[in-house]
Amino acid sequence: PGEAKAKAIKVAKSSKKLGEDDPRRVIHSLKVGLALTFVSFFYYSRPLYDDFGQSGMWAVLTVVVIFEFTVGGTLSKGLYRGLATLLACALGFGASNLASHFGRKGQPIVLGILVFLLVAASTFTRFFPRIKARYDYGVVIFILTFSLVCVSGYRVEKLLVLALQRLSTILVGGAICILLSFIFPVWAGEDLHKLVASNVEKLAKYLEGFGGEFFQPLEDGRNDKVSNTDKSFLRRYKNVLNSKSTEESLANLARWEPRHGRFGFRHPWKQYLKIGSLSRRCAYQIEALDAYINSHNQAPLKFRCKIQGPCTRMSIECSMALESLASAIKTMTLPSSANVHVENSKTAIKDLKIAIKTVSLDHDQDLLAIVPAATVASMIIEIVKCVESLSESVHE
Amino acid sequence: PGEAKAKAIKVAKSSKKLGEDDPRRVIHSLKVGLALTFVSFFYYSRPLYDDFGQSGMWAVLTVVVIFEFTVGGTLSKGLYRGLATLLACALGFGASNLASHFGRKGQPIVLGILVFLLVAASTFTRFFPRIKARYDYGVVIFILTFSLVCVSGYRVEKLLVLALQRLSTILVGGAICILLSFIFPVWAGEDLHKLVASNVEKLAKYLEGFGGEFFQPLEDGRNDKVSNTDKSFLRRYKNVLNSKSTEESLANLARWEPRHGRFGFRHPWKQYLKIGSLSRRCAYQIEALDAYINSHNQAPLKFRCKIQGPCTRMSIECSMALESLASAIKTMTLPSSANVHVENSKTAIKDLKIAIKTVSLDHDQDLLAIVPAATVASMIIEIVKCVESLSESVHE
Repeated sequence: PGEAKAKAIKVAKSSKKLGEDDPRRVIHSLKVGLALTFVSFFYYSRPLYDDFGQSGMWAVLTVVVIFEFTVGGTLSKGLYRGLATLLACALGFGASNLASHFGRKGQPIVLGILVFLLVAASTFTRFFPRIKARYDYGVVIFILTFSLVCVSGYRVEKLLVLALQRLSTILVGGAICILLSFIFPVWAGEDLHKLVASNVEKLAKYLEGFGGEFFQPLEDGRNDKVSNTDKSFLRRYKNVLNSKSTEESLANLARWEPRHGRFGFRHPWKQYLKIGSLSRRCAYQIEALDAYINSHNQAPLKFRCKIQGPCTRMSIECSMALESLASAIKTMTLPSSANVHVENSKTAIKDLKIAIKTVSLDHDQDLLAIVPAATVASMIIEIVKCVESLSESVHE
Repeated sequence: PGEAKAKAIKVAKSSKKLGEDDPRRVIHSLKVGLALTFVSFFYYSRPLYDDFGQSGMWAVLTVVVIFEFTVGGTLSKGLYRGLATLLACALGFGASNLASHFGRKGQPIVLGILVFLLVAASTFTRFFPRIKARYDYGVVIFILTFSLVCVSGYRVEKLLVLALQRLSTILVGGAICILLSFIFPVWAGEDLHKLVASNVEKLAKYLEGFGGEFFQPLEDGRNDKVSNTDKSFLRRYKNVLNSKSTEESLANLARWEPRHGRFGFRHPWKQYLKIGSLSRRCAYQIEALDAYINSHNQAPLKFRCKIQGPCTRMSIECSMALESLASAIKTMTLPSSANVHVENSKTAIKDLKIAIKTVSLDHDQDLLAIVPAATVASMIIEIVKCVESLSESVHE
């Protein structure tokens, strides 16, 4: 019992943290609960029952499958559901009519063949990458509705009435979802915006800490503990590495959302994907750089003293450039100070090159351990330039 | 009309390519068509109709939502659907019973509150990352069935009969899906196995070509065209960078699959994830390395001649080690020759270090342009060692 209690407390704590991290999650859960309660009441109330009949459950089904976390998700799913249902109903009617010409015995066979062909064909379209990415849900709904219409077409005589009932309940369910999703809305576009900005920021944070981390143990040897405790911010960039799928799905949903806040209807969401992929490239470089962060004691002291200054300056300036880019994305202004920092880091590269030139070769055996930091830093500067030009194109 | 024809031909061609790339896609589409046709016939045939009634459509619904491309996917979804439906039915009965004590007026209100609470709570659990990854589908089914049972509980008097009917149709639909998925099965585990091996292979292919690509224009200047045409194999490693989510979902599904082919029931799928993440780390390094591939003309000739030998040898040996690892994963044997290649590349590093030592500083200004290739190669060797130890642990 004590163990169970401890576990319950643990679950409660992690739920609380989950809710506190993003209160919109709690609100979303409440909204879904509300939507289903609405739909249930709709179905409970006697007068409506006669109108909607068994199809009332389609409203419940619609709410469950449509209601997504973001407004874009709910809108796109709702639209797909509506369109796919209409198309499937129309085709289903056609199929039923066609089959009815074949008499009592032929009818099920013709219907079966038609179901087989259309279902197999539409299942196959789901393997097209473009359809998979955007219309997967619509195709599933199409398959479902088409088979249902065909199946019930044979049974229920008043097919048209039934289909209209069903469509109206789906409409009711969809309308409730869409209305509720606009109360305390969660915008996929805004999430994408924040995600891209915070990813750039994470890279900046890493570069900010990198110089200190790499050259730290020069001064004293007992810094290991300190560096262990505050290393967490150095790990955060790892999230950027695998951000591709999240960004793409958010951008897909964002295109569905109406004008909201600072985002117009035709906001250039594709630009975010470009910035995202550039910051991912930058993160790959940082990942490569990170492998060297613990090799600091291998290099000869004299050489390290020479490169420490320019290297630290480069990474700090890069970090500041990225930081200003991130805040520019956030506030949707032109990144004014980023250029200055990029220029500064370029002069730091020149200083570094001069410093390397003055190195004499006798304590140069462990060249391999030092130079990568400098070279990777110079690559990051190139990437910063790309990001900069891109963020400028966003704020056109 | 000509334009439409051209478009149709284009679609037909890409469909053909899609089918030829993986014939299992065609088979899967046919299987889904077959399953739905079976279910429809099941529903058509008179004697069964009386038993299954309106719930026959639940069989259709089950097939549409359960049938997945892989065996693991179908099995897990089928199981979740069954379990979630049972649990939701039980809770729904409880809720209906509880509500019936509150009289005609109180009943819908109590039911509404119960629906609201349970739906909100279970929607919230979907935000837990662990539940999201594994049980998301089950939770959705639970929400759906619970609300439906609650809603119909108020309407339909013979709730128990209805529920049993529904469960039996779901069982029929699920059974058809699971049976069909075992005919020409698509194993998620096998796909994962192949994916991991081919990813390692892609890295090997890149390293194999890298040496030649980087040092090529030393001999003659007109090689640009050649390198442009066969560069595609150098780009393939990019797929590895974003393979994380695919690998994880495949591994999740693979755990559901029974013993098949060379894969036991408790095959160590987690090892594949480890190998996958190590090869991704390797791919990040290659991505960083790739940024230098076009910088070959910046370095002074004399220096390049010195490092060309060891560098090329390093990347070739790495490539061979990775190649032998990939084939070891494929055939599930111990990677015997990988060690030799790793040792060879280690001696190549030593050679390289000696070569660098003998460089005099007067033509060393562009040090930055050359050294990265060498350093990154040395990093890759370290990663190869990791991969090697891991693949050994897989073939325990």
